[in-house]
Amino acid sequence: MNKHKKHMEAALKEAQTAFDKDEVPVGAVIVYKGQIIGRAHNQIKTLKDPTAHAEMIAITQAASRLKNERLKDCSLYVTIEPCPMCAGAMVLARIQDLFYATEDPKSGASGSALNILQNKKLNHKVKVKQGLLKDESRSLIQEFFKKKRERCVSG
Amino acid sequence: MNKHKKHMEAALKEAQTAFDKDEVPVGAVIVYKGQIIGRAHNQIKTLKDPTAHAEMIAITQAASRLKNERLKDCSLYVTIEPCPMCAGAMVLARIQDLFYATEDPKSGASGSALNILQNKKLNHKVKVKQGLLKDESRSLIQEFFKKKRERCVSG
Repeated sequence: MNKHKKHMEAALKEAQTAFDKDEVPVGAVIVYKGQIIGRAHNQIKTLKDPTAHAEMIAITQAASRLKNERLKDCSLYVTIEPCPMCAGAMVLARIQDLFYATEDPKSGASGSALNILQNKKLNHKVKVKQGLLKDESRSLIQEFFKKKRERCVSG
Repeated sequence: MNKHKKHMEAALKEAQTAFDKDEVPVGAVIVYKGQIIGRAHNQIKTLKDPTAHAEMIAITQAASRLKNERLKDCSLYVTIEPCPMCAGAMVLARIQDLFYATEDPKSGASGSALNILQNKKLNHKVKVKQGLLKDESRSLIQEFFKKKRERCVSG
């Protein structure tokens, strides 16, 4: 199997874990020299922490693992286009490559709402590829919000 | 003393703590109903974590204290204009007011490099005031980088 698809499947598995915990289903993994060194899902509600996005937790894990606050030569796989906070963290961490599954038209910071990952005013550019497991990731998010709406309607 | 000045002095004290630990000297506090509920300094090198900016740690603390991932009606005081990651976190946390001391022309996300805090494409705007204890904050940062340069030159 294509290695990128394999890593995005690991991210999607994390997103499913978030879904099962009633968290917005987003998952992320970070890969260095072929090994996953960070693996996380969104935990905002569980931790009562607005910064606890999948990407942020994975970045903290990976930096701890490498004992280095710079994640040079690392690739990050995430199931949805990162928000401004997470994109800013990727620039600070010097992530080399980002693979994301589906776009976020409302607050995506890889071109949808803003462009932080390849912004000429910032001192690092992240290479971005999108679309891997897009349908699977989008379906999971759509199912999550459909369930939320049904719950609101039924009281 | 003016309450805003008092809170910025608390943030500046945190920045001094960062300076003393050889971290880029940035400090932040978060205030809710007149009480400081988050107080932190930059800890990137200490924690080996690129996300460990003063504002991020203070947001996590404050949300934990309020048991709520939304920091409505909270004010954040920080000694330098926030970067894209921290500004994005403030939008996610629904911070009401931001007071920052000195601008960051290179990566400030309150208008210097980007504008995330009052971006019409995002779903929350943070009210921003700048300039409180600007000279003190800027001097501390300039002294830090001067010391770094001298150390590089002297080997």
